[in-house]
Amino acid sequence: MSEIILGKNQYGKAENRVVRIYRDTPRHEIRDVNVSTCLRGDFHAAHLAGDQSDVLPTDTQKQTAYAYAKEEGLRTIEDYGLALARHFVGDVAPVEAARIEIEEYAWQRAVVEGREHDYTWIRSGQEVRTAAVTVDGSGEWVVGGLKDLTILKSTGSEFSGFLTDDYTVLEPTHDRVMATSLVAQWRFTSTDVDWDAVYAGVKTLLVERFAVIQSLALQQTLYEMGAAVLRAYDVIAEVRLSAPNKHHFLYDLSPFGLDNENEVYNADDRPYGLIQATVTRDDAPPPGPAFDLQQGWLG
Amino acid sequence: MSEIILGKNQYGKAENRVVRIYRDTPRHEIRDVNVSTCLRGDFHAAHLAGDQSDVLPTDTQKQTAYAYAKEEGLRTIEDYGLALARHFVGDVAPVEAARIEIEEYAWQRAVVEGREHDYTWIRSGQEVRTAAVTVDGSGEWVVGGLKDLTILKSTGSEFSGFLTDDYTVLEPTHDRVMATSLVAQWRFTSTDVDWDAVYAGVKTLLVERFAVIQSLALQQTLYEMGAAVLRAYDVIAEVRLSAPNKHHFLYDLSPFGLDNENEVYNADDRPYGLIQATVTRDDAPPPGPAFDLQQGWLG
Amino acid sequence: MSEIILGKNQYGKAENRVVRIYRDTPRHEIRDVNVSTCLRGDFHAAHLAGDQSDVLPTDTQKQTAYAYAKEEGLRTIEDYGLALARHFVGDVAPVEAARIEIEEYAWQRAVVEGREHDYTWIRSGQEVRTAAVTVDGSGEWVVGGLKDLTILKSTGSEFSGFLTDDYTVLEPTHDRVMATSLVAQWRFTSTDVDWDAVYAGVKTLLVERFAVIQSLALQQTLYEMGAAVLRAYDVIAEVRLSAPNKHHFLYDLSPFGLDNENEVYNADDRPYGLIQATVTRDDAPPPGPAFDLQQGWLG
Amino acid sequence: MSEIILGKNQYGKAENRVVRIYRDTPRHEIRDVNVSTCLRGDFHAAHLAGDQSDVLPTDTQKQTAYAYAKEEGLRTIEDYGLALARHFVGDVAPVEAARIEIEEYAWQRAVVEGREHDYTWIRSGQEVRTAAVTVDGSGEWVVGGLKDLTILKSTGSEFSGFLTDDYTVLEPTHDRVMATSLVAQWRFTSTDVDWDAVYAGVKTLLVERFAVIQSLALQQTLYEMGAAVLRAYDVIAEVRLSAPNKHHFLYDLSPFGLDNENEVYNADDRPYGLIQATVTRDDAPPPGPAFDLQQGWLG
Repeated sequence: MSEIILGKNQYGKAENRVVRIYRDTPRHEIRDVNVSTCLRGDFHAAHLAGDQSDVLPTDTQKQTAYAYAKEEGLRTIEDYGLALARHFVGDVAPVEAARIEIEEYAWQRAVVEGREHDYTWIRSGQEVRTAAVTVDGSGEWVVGGLKDLTILKSTGSEFSGFLTDDYTVLEPTHDRVMATSLVAQWRFTSTDVDWDAVYAGVKTLLVERFAVIQSLALQQTLYEMGAAVLRAYDVIAEVRLSAPNKHHFLYDLSPFGLDNENEVYNADDRPYGLIQATVTRDDAPPPGPAFDLQQGWLG
Repeated sequence: MSEIILGKNQYGKAENRVVRIYRDTPRHEIRDVNVSTCLRGDFHAAHLAGDQSDVLPTDTQKQTAYAYAKEEGLRTIEDYGLALARHFVGDVAPVEAARIEIEEYAWQRAVVEGREHDYTWIRSGQEVRTAAVTVDGSGEWVVGGLKDLTILKSTGSEFSGFLTDDYTVLEPTHDRVMATSLVAQWRFTSTDVDWDAVYAGVKTLLVERFAVIQSLALQQTLYEMGAAVLRAYDVIAEVRLSAPNKHHFLYDLSPFGLDNENEVYNADDRPYGLIQATVTRDDAPPPGPAFDLQQGWLG
Repeated sequence: MSEIILGKNQYGKAENRVVRIYRDTPRHEIRDVNVSTCLRGDFHAAHLAGDQSDVLPTDTQKQTAYAYAKEEGLRTIEDYGLALARHFVGDVAPVEAARIEIEEYAWQRAVVEGREHDYTWIRSGQEVRTAAVTVDGSGEWVVGGLKDLTILKSTGSEFSGFLTDDYTVLEPTHDRVMATSLVAQWRFTSTDVDWDAVYAGVKTLLVERFAVIQSLALQQTLYEMGAAVLRAYDVIAEVRLSAPNKHHFLYDLSPFGLDNENEVYNADDRPYGLIQATVTRDDAPPPGPAFDLQQGWLG
Repeated sequence: MSEIILGKNQYGKAENRVVRIYRDTPRHEIRDVNVSTCLRGDFHAAHLAGDQSDVLPTDTQKQTAYAYAKEEGLRTIEDYGLALARHFVGDVAPVEAARIEIEEYAWQRAVVEGREHDYTWIRSGQEVRTAAVTVDGSGEWVVGGLKDLTILKSTGSEFSGFLTDDYTVLEPTHDRVMATSLVAQWRFTSTDVDWDAVYAGVKTLLVERFAVIQSLALQQTLYEMGAAVLRAYDVIAEVRLSAPNKHHFLYDLSPFGLDNENEVYNADDRPYGLIQATVTRDDAPPPGPAFDLQQGWLG
């Protein structure tokens, strides 16, 4: 007769919307983040008996996230995440591992009479920078990333020579619009990193490779994008890419006697192709808990 | 005994996602819009008897929106909207008035090795440009606009001296974060306008006024923003502004022995103040149907 | 030379998420609402000079919304909205008119061993009940309503005999799926109404007419739905209906040698037809400010 | 020197919105699903060389999803998912594994004059039923589930005796509102299951346990809910639960001289506690690829 047992579990406070203003000089700085905390450990008593004596409330985790924005500062999301994770594991006895997931929203300085303003910004919606930090007794893992980077090329993309079966009606093409809303995550093998410089460099590489590669398929483009990042940064062990194919369908204008030589498209919502790939190294250390998610664990 | 009658009515095709690529030279151009069409006229037979003989299908309106992106082109949303509206009113007998509402999503050129790429773009999420065009037998109305312009200042904003009653607990402040996600719409009195130049100029003015005014309340800021636009552009008769006050609450760090001198905030979701104002001229012509909406008519 | 002036303006606190539990007996009751307040009056000083002395803060409006859920109770959203609106107009001197917009989320009692539970509920996502109350010195207006009522019929719907032009490719049909996500608002001519009974009755009528009418077009169906409500309720002067045509396109299975006799559809997202109609009485009193929106005023 | 290699990868067509009507009798039936397909195998050539000869297009996967709704039928999402997954693995040579993820939207029959209508339905928003099917050369895995089940109890919930540290300000409580929007997934150890009966039974158990347990913490409630399912269904090996704690904060009415004995709450949006737990058996077979996601793999 089988016995019912507690399996994997975790808990935390999700989506703390912390905004940090640096105002030591007349030219202020802003950091705007959405931080989620997640603790792991032996919480059998809470689950089986409702005993909370080992449970640090999620409200306390929230307070800590705000307090650390002052105490430890919030300059880069990677360092802020490390500070929080180390605190929970190091200072709270029952906590064996901590996972901190952060999104950062970028702001651009407003321009007034041609000059950047000291304390006014417009939110840039271009992409969201992400970080996921995991700390446990055996190590520390940082995953940098971005999401919602919507990128499109109006030529330089093909799709042909594919496998066909009885359900295939798609025609091959040698010139199409290719667009995606890119999610990319890159795993570091160190925490001694110039986070901002690497972030800027990785984003530039991803965009450049997307632009200049003659794409035979989104798979090939993604692989090249990931490989370029690995070639440039020894401190990155793997890149994971998820790319919804935001289909732009050539609109049929022939009933109206009009040509449409790749000029007018319908940008469709659903369904969409979803292409996902990991590019890594043959000697990459194992990822450990680096990709054990809080958000998304159960879809 | 009262008789039941048909009142105000309209119909159309909403949210056609038209993307237009100009590729006459190696340096492509892109226009990415969401266009909604709406027809008005005498459609009693359709409502009372189900007789569709005066009803141009919404599918036809969709086909026309795509066809016109080729036939008439899609360089500015104001001219594209005018072309569509004039067609429906001029060429389709039962249509007495047409309303075209358009959102435009901006794309920035990808930068490759320091230079703008010819056919790759990243979607800029900064704000959405809008246009609403109405044409009927008596005239033409164009309303330019923007929405989702999220703007924040970390100082230079006060709120004090307000009315109080038995339900007032708010404390006055002389230094707070002020942020909004601005919606602005401006009504033109002509269709002979350099739409792109005016759009750029209006956006610049709105941002500059938001930045430099010492704000005593969002109402005052909005009024100044609208007035600046009217002073600069004779061709604009009124500006309507809607500004959710995206509250940033100073986080109480005192339980942890920490000062918080306007440094750490919680960016709250709901509820939010909602401040709406119209700035106009004493001799402005009446708006006519300029603000008779399709989207939003019934909330 | 024209002078710049302040036009129409209003302000309030939007989306207060008030939940009221009645627990006087072991069988609790729940009301779950999203209430937005909006004040109108002479607020020139605030706009032109930043003088807040006539401005009741939006924070105070929020406090009042929560306090009134206790003081005045929250049994029906119509009465709760009336109480709030009357208070702002009657008790706060500078306020000339108040607009209260409310959404109510329904909860169904959880069933435990075949019986309804006393204090556990599951949120029913079927539709959102709405109310909009406006009070000014000259009267009181209540608009009841619902939104997000997603309804579908798999036969009994046609579309043929429509107007055609050069851009028409649509084929007529005599059997299609018709679906919409209905928005309906009905204007009362009294405030002495059994709000819950009328709401239940109107919803039943709307659903029944949608189901049983052989639809020749969505226009005809909407008109019949509205007329049925007016026939049944003298206390209602007009019904406004907004119906996105949630297109279900018959999927072409012929390439695979399969028939598809109205069996397999693609439920498309965008674009969608949008049909809007008002059904009223020839002797209906004018609507006054009943439909002067807060949410949606500027789209 | 390390070599760059392709790691884990997969691709498919996400969010096909298939609607299937059964109309063999005057009383129609409807199935409304959102189905995503995902293929795994050796796709090195596509990634490294852009060679698509082993790649079945995502468009073909879409066609197959619609065709199978007719050919194989769509009565339960579990059987439909199995049919699709078996087809891709069995009939398409390069495919080594297939993952099918499905959401099902429930419709309730419209009631006309007290009787259920034959072909009109209202969409029930109560919860979304889910299924995830994985087939590879070594076996078949089915995970049933639900999401968006929003459930609330207005008493019978406590939170006290928790761990405290320097950042803890939360006060213990013995009577609070507890609410969540539940996600649950249960892994079957067989495919010979009456899917609809088990789904109905599991949902009933989850709701009943939530209602009747005196909750000392969400962790304890979740564990009891999962354990109840395992006790009732031998065919289920584990239950995974993810529960955002939808905080309802007691509103402070004391400034207004009003008591608030658990009557008036603010339903807050963010942040929220997020509690996740797995309840399983000590002799459960390993999950294999049952929880290797398509949607959500990269968050």
